[in-house]
Amino acid sequence: MRSIAAAVQAGTLTAEAATAACLARVAAREDAVRAWAFLDPELALAEARERDRTGAHGPLAGVAIGVKDIIDTADQPTAYGSAAYEGYRPAWDAPCVALSRQAGAVMLGKTVSTEFAFVAPGKTRNPFDPGHTPGGSSSGSCAAVADGMVPLAFGTQTAGSIVRPASFCGVVGYKPSYGTLERAGIKVLSGSLDTLGVITRDVRDAAHAVAVLARRPALAVPDVALPPRIGLFRTSRWDMAEAATRQALDRAVAALAARGVAVREVAVPGWFDELFAMQDIVMGWELMQALAHERLVLAERLAPKTLALMAEKEAITLADYDAAVAALAPLQQRFHALIGDLDALLTPAAPGEAPAGLGSTGDAVFNRAWTMLRVPGIAVPAGLGPGGLPVGVQLVGRLGDDARLLAAAAFVEDSLAA
Amino acid sequence: MRSIAAAVQAGTLTAEAATAACLARVAAREDAVRAWAFLDPELALAEARERDRTGAHGPLAGVAIGVKDIIDTADQPTAYGSAAYEGYRPAWDAPCVALSRQAGAVMLGKTVSTEFAFVAPGKTRNPFDPGHTPGGSSSGSCAAVADGMVPLAFGTQTAGSIVRPASFCGVVGYKPSYGTLERAGIKVLSGSLDTLGVITRDVRDAAHAVAVLARRPALAVPDVALPPRIGLFRTSRWDMAEAATRQALDRAVAALAARGVAVREVAVPGWFDELFAMQDIVMGWELMQALAHERLVLAERLAPKTLALMAEKEAITLADYDAAVAALAPLQQRFHALIGDLDALLTPAAPGEAPAGLGSTGDAVFNRAWTMLRVPGIAVPAGLGPGGLPVGVQLVGRLGDDARLLAAAAFVEDSLAA
Repeated sequence: MRSIAAAVQAGTLTAEAATAACLARVAAREDAVRAWAFLDPELALAEARERDRTGAHGPLAGVAIGVKDIIDTADQPTAYGSAAYEGYRPAWDAPCVALSRQAGAVMLGKTVSTEFAFVAPGKTRNPFDPGHTPGGSSSGSCAAVADGMVPLAFGTQTAGSIVRPASFCGVVGYKPSYGTLERAGIKVLSGSLDTLGVITRDVRDAAHAVAVLARRPALAVPDVALPPRIGLFRTSRWDMAEAATRQALDRAVAALAARGVAVREVAVPGWFDELFAMQDIVMGWELMQALAHERLVLAERLAPKTLALMAEKEAITLADYDAAVAALAPLQQRFHALIGDLDALLTPAAPGEAPAGLGSTGDAVFNRAWTMLRVPGIAVPAGLGPGGLPVGVQLVGRLGDDARLLAAAAFVEDSLAA
Repeated sequence: MRSIAAAVQAGTLTAEAATAACLARVAAREDAVRAWAFLDPELALAEARERDRTGAHGPLAGVAIGVKDIIDTADQPTAYGSAAYEGYRPAWDAPCVALSRQAGAVMLGKTVSTEFAFVAPGKTRNPFDPGHTPGGSSSGSCAAVADGMVPLAFGTQTAGSIVRPASFCGVVGYKPSYGTLERAGIKVLSGSLDTLGVITRDVRDAAHAVAVLARRPALAVPDVALPPRIGLFRTSRWDMAEAATRQALDRAVAALAARGVAVREVAVPGWFDELFAMQDIVMGWELMQALAHERLVLAERLAPKTLALMAEKEAITLADYDAAVAALAPLQQRFHALIGDLDALLTPAAPGEAPAGLGSTGDAVFNRAWTMLRVPGIAVPAGLGPGGLPVGVQLVGRLGDDARLLAAAAFVEDSLAA
């Protein structure tokens, strides 16, 4: 991605040619992958030619972006992954889209999301095996980047919707600290949790994109990352980690050791497991409010799986919700103390390889606690599992110190590639 | 408002008759007040008849609501107070609208907002004197409730956009604790500050409406409010308080004393004034992101005042923003200690009466610090100023303890009416 922007800036590549290459890949592979909710090649090429015409050579010059379908676009339909909003056309671009265009990017199309970024899967398949889920809710974004259709895509995470599908698809999925990227123009699921992030092929691309869009140049990672201090954190749900994930973590630890970084294990404190129930309660209570119109007016057009899980959330009480909200700040402080002088925690990104079947996008068990804490997390590809599908590891950092996390993640990535 | 709902529930009033009464008032007065951005009498009556037909007698049965024009509605246009979005029709109702309809209310129309709830005024006049501003950004909502056109209207506050116009119009304006009411479907100005609230004619109506919509029954205020502990807090900007506001506070203190409540003054700590710069920085940095499409694509169609103030915000630095965000939690803790065992602080709602002229909606100096702290605040009418226009006082409470604030505000209101 950075190489594309650099070439377009240097005049050795046009935005049109870069976009055409993406479209060629889509044409060859979309029947199998089904990553796109909407894609009009002529519209994308017209935008690319407009970039070339105006010479707008910003930091994302010529970069084709896949925009998750829960993100508003003025020139393309936005259906929020739902039949209930099929063909809907918002009046604006969400800020992340508007700022990307200003930076020189081209919106290639809208990528498949689960319905409202909740649980009902879309049509996307795992590019490595069409019988397996790509993960979700950012299904199309992860599949499209994994398959070489676009170098950058937007994802959002409320439970595990960036990091988990990135791990399943063998790409980088970066969920910044809560609040880093503006969320206006993005369908709300849970205001306390929803986080906009990016999917890319390497850590430095993810850092570059968010540095540009959040106006935080310090997030960019230098070419040579310094050896980080990293702790291994198995979480309180380690029994859910399959062989693929355990082996991926072992590979990461070994690769770091080979470059002189000793990973020490950090014990899992008793309070950590409280975060799971908290995340479930906060998400459930808030989505019942945020999706009020859908629940009350559009119910007949929603997926059965959406309705079934909404019905379950009716049982959440106000007392439970208030207790969960009140518990957050103290647990954030405890986490800050736990991570201590480490740059990042190394932890599972997903239970294992992408599960077989398309009826579920997999389990967010290794993501939900981090989303609740609002801390940044990033999935880094770590080879293939026993089934031949990709598996990632996750690095987690301190709230608001994404630069430190990204540098550590880049070092892990470099080590695994060495 | 509660009496309307009770009568409709009891079958002694129809939603249609209640709505028709509101429409009659609009017909008589809209030429002078100009509170409405959109109002279709037939559409409102049709919704009312539908309520009567289905016998949906919820806790807001037959209550006609004015919906601030930055809040999405599926059956009415939503222009966000801007010529750039004239005639735009969203695909959904914002949750606050959907939940109101479910509770039996009727959406009378869309009320005038400043452009994007920022600074460029709309067409609304103060119902007490058409040469004076109604305040903003919730201009039409406050004017419509003040003029008897609706018993309930939605407002939003990012700086002082509920409490200030409520004070100028002689109505109750309640900004709940940040996060109390869901904000999905509401145009984002500043995600860290934007708060949805309500405008009503008395405190118990405001408490009832938010209790219903936030699913927090404990917010409802009993008919007999107990004597509260209240401190007088002049803020660090007391020199901005005009005679009208000083006298209103004096009246409130005297009314409380007459009912046996001694108001003691709370000294203003040095840190309090830091909140003003923080609010300005957080709002300015965030709105430049949230309104990216408007700023980058729609600039030619925006009000000059919007563009001019946006241009000023370009100067805010990331370092300033991060420092402001980091300063919030410690100041929230200090405020919690400051309020101590008091139920509420009594403090100005606005500098004075509504200023003459329609070119500005007035100064949010007595609101911005509270919005930054995310604490609940409520304007309570406190008579007329020397110029014959209304002036309110503000009660401010602890974050998340809105029930205590509302009970205290109801006691103040009762005392002033005694």
